[in-house]
Amino acid sequence: MNAEIIAIGSELLTPYRQDTNSLYLTERLNQLGVEVIFKTIVGDNREHLTAAANQALSRADLVIFMGGLGPTEDDLTREAVADALGLELRRDPEIIASIERRFASRNLKMTPNNAQQADVIAGAVVLPNAHGTAPGQWISGKYDGREKIILLLPGPPHELKALFDQQCMERLRAKLPQQFIATRELKVAMMGESACDARVAPIYKRYQDVQTTILAGAGEVQLHLKARAASLEAAQQRIDELAEKLEEELGDAVFSDNGDSMEQIVGYYLQMRNATLAVAESCTGGLLAERITSVSGSSRYFVGGAVAYSNELKTAFADVPTDLIAKHGAVSREVAAALAEGIRKRCGATFGLGVTGVAGPTGGTPEKPVGLVFHGLASERGTEVVERSFPGDRKRVRWFASQQALDMVRRKLL
Amino acid sequence: MNAEIIAIGSELLTPYRQDTNSLYLTERLNQLGVEVIFKTIVGDNREHLTAAANQALSRADLVIFMGGLGPTEDDLTREAVADALGLELRRDPEIIASIERRFASRNLKMTPNNAQQADVIAGAVVLPNAHGTAPGQWISGKYDGREKIILLLPGPPHELKALFDQQCMERLRAKLPQQFIATRELKVAMMGESACDARVAPIYKRYQDVQTTILAGAGEVQLHLKARAASLEAAQQRIDELAEKLEEELGDAVFSDNGDSMEQIVGYYLQMRNATLAVAESCTGGLLAERITSVSGSSRYFVGGAVAYSNELKTAFADVPTDLIAKHGAVSREVAAALAEGIRKRCGATFGLGVTGVAGPTGGTPEKPVGLVFHGLASERGTEVVERSFPGDRKRVRWFASQQALDMVRRKLL
Repeated sequence: MNAEIIAIGSELLTPYRQDTNSLYLTERLNQLGVEVIFKTIVGDNREHLTAAANQALSRADLVIFMGGLGPTEDDLTREAVADALGLELRRDPEIIASIERRFASRNLKMTPNNAQQADVIAGAVVLPNAHGTAPGQWISGKYDGREKIILLLPGPPHELKALFDQQCMERLRAKLPQQFIATRELKVAMMGESACDARVAPIYKRYQDVQTTILAGAGEVQLHLKARAASLEAAQQRIDELAEKLEEELGDAVFSDNGDSMEQIVGYYLQMRNATLAVAESCTGGLLAERITSVSGSSRYFVGGAVAYSNELKTAFADVPTDLIAKHGAVSREVAAALAEGIRKRCGATFGLGVTGVAGPTGGTPEKPVGLVFHGLASERGTEVVERSFPGDRKRVRWFASQQALDMVRRKLL
Repeated sequence: MNAEIIAIGSELLTPYRQDTNSLYLTERLNQLGVEVIFKTIVGDNREHLTAAANQALSRADLVIFMGGLGPTEDDLTREAVADALGLELRRDPEIIASIERRFASRNLKMTPNNAQQADVIAGAVVLPNAHGTAPGQWISGKYDGREKIILLLPGPPHELKALFDQQCMERLRAKLPQQFIATRELKVAMMGESACDARVAPIYKRYQDVQTTILAGAGEVQLHLKARAASLEAAQQRIDELAEKLEEELGDAVFSDNGDSMEQIVGYYLQMRNATLAVAESCTGGLLAERITSVSGSSRYFVGGAVAYSNELKTAFADVPTDLIAKHGAVSREVAAALAEGIRKRCGATFGLGVTGVAGPTGGTPEKPVGLVFHGLASERGTEVVERSFPGDRKRVRWFASQQALDMVRRKLL
């Protein structure tokens, strides 16, 4: 089965807003073995919307409409889809009653325009919306002589997700031939996409029945594996076998095989060892601490640290000797080590991280160009320093630097 | 004139990748007075691509294809558009020579598959690509008896942007009736979308000739104004007049009228006053420092600070008395003030910010629920504390808290 997703709303045709619901739906549909073949974005215009509906119905088995189900005169999805299907709309008194109850529960009176949300396409199954007023609709019928499934879903992401997961997944599964799909994701740290691919391509190419997708981010490569087979066990076995060979080839560069982020992984490892971490950041300016503390519960292993942006604070908060800075410069192997050691002692943490570098776009010199970063990791057994030159703009250099620092802690705890 | 944008690439139909080029193009097209009426996303499939091309040509005056111009067998845009237009492709020896030179300059030999990048649709103007091998193409001709403009652009954002700005904007402008469009953006701090709209709607509704779009983010509302008139001066005068009335109504809640971010604005104000800032963060965990230091040149006014996640560090780095924490709790008005005062003194900064709260999802109590945040701002004239209860998840609460803290500095410096 293939699908087309239609996102509806004039705001999605401005420079300011983008459909993101379709990424979520695509993930879910792929889990069912449904491939998305087109996505269309259309404004709140009945003629355009009807044309898009007709087009989608002519080429996809499953057509999902998102948005345009609200109470305003711009909400035209029901009318346009009914037009395209040549079906009538009827107003459902039960839905009106439920919308009235919703308003009453907040001591409000339902305004008349809300009634259009009770318009149901003939033959549609109404999908109650637990998080909003506009229900979804499921239509299973013929278009041009071919069986189609048509879904009308509300646009707000939290309404759409809950409604789709709770009321559409199983209904769709029941309509599909039984399929067994297993997926897995490996995340690889601090390796370029092409360098990674050069190592893993000879392996995954031998697994013709496993679909392998390589995606690159800053300081991270993701390998997405997907297999179909006659049973879930068989599919799982194929991707597990491939994943094992890939992990063997890439070694400890693989930091996650279940979707966890680098900061989550570092958190797990620290907790397992009953260890704590403190950071002293210069060029990353708080990003490293921000990433670590973005994980709920991070207070169990992260004590805190210093954003030592000025030289004075490097000394005041991490005891970096002023003559060390004078001699080697703030961006140096020695200062990275001193930041790591100083913050570790000051905070009484198991590990101390120190990061200093040139994030750019200004501040670079021939000896210390933009992108040069020193990362120090101190523990009771001593201090290691890694020097890296990162490409890209300020944002990218800072992200790479935070990723490298976290990866040093991860490798230390392996 | 209206436009359809077609993004090409099977990766754009996965859960992992999204077209973002179209946001950029939409902004540029709107500047020319061109409205985007449809966006279509299609995979590397010749039949699907040709269908999408025919569909777009039947409904839009300007059709922009992005991607699918590379050297692999998946790159099918040229063929599909030629099919849809009923035109021939001819291989251009000059383009082949230029691709060969590009390879030679890196001491590489051009592989044969690269030659397809030299296939030009009959009658097309070739648009050289300064940042990649595949040139763009501009076709101006008839489809079904109506004048159309068709653009083929490379998919990588930096190639597409440079090529469009340098070679398409003026060509398009020359094809369009002379238009005068003025735009302006007001950003409003720490106000809800509906509260903001309730105050400004009676004003902007009197300006029927100015298109006003209200968008909400976390801790920020944006008002986008756009006007067309017989001259640029007349258009500019209309939006300036409206902007002035909106600013009058909203007062100092408006923090930017030229697109600058909160952290940039705070940076300007601090520099203007020759003032410096230090921060002591608990629940924001580094986010506040990260936002401030994301601005290049922030070392001129930001000295640094502490991520005082543990109670011990609140004392060690910001001199918060232990008995104050014991008496009022780490999340309290008193500790926020002490953090601000302590970090200010420790860092010798003009201003000190202290933030402490419950970011969630765990850690909330009936007295101190998730979302409760205290923000302290200390200066030589004393300390003020703002208590807020923010909605949403951990990420949203932390963002709101950082926005509120920055806004306090901004208001102080007004």
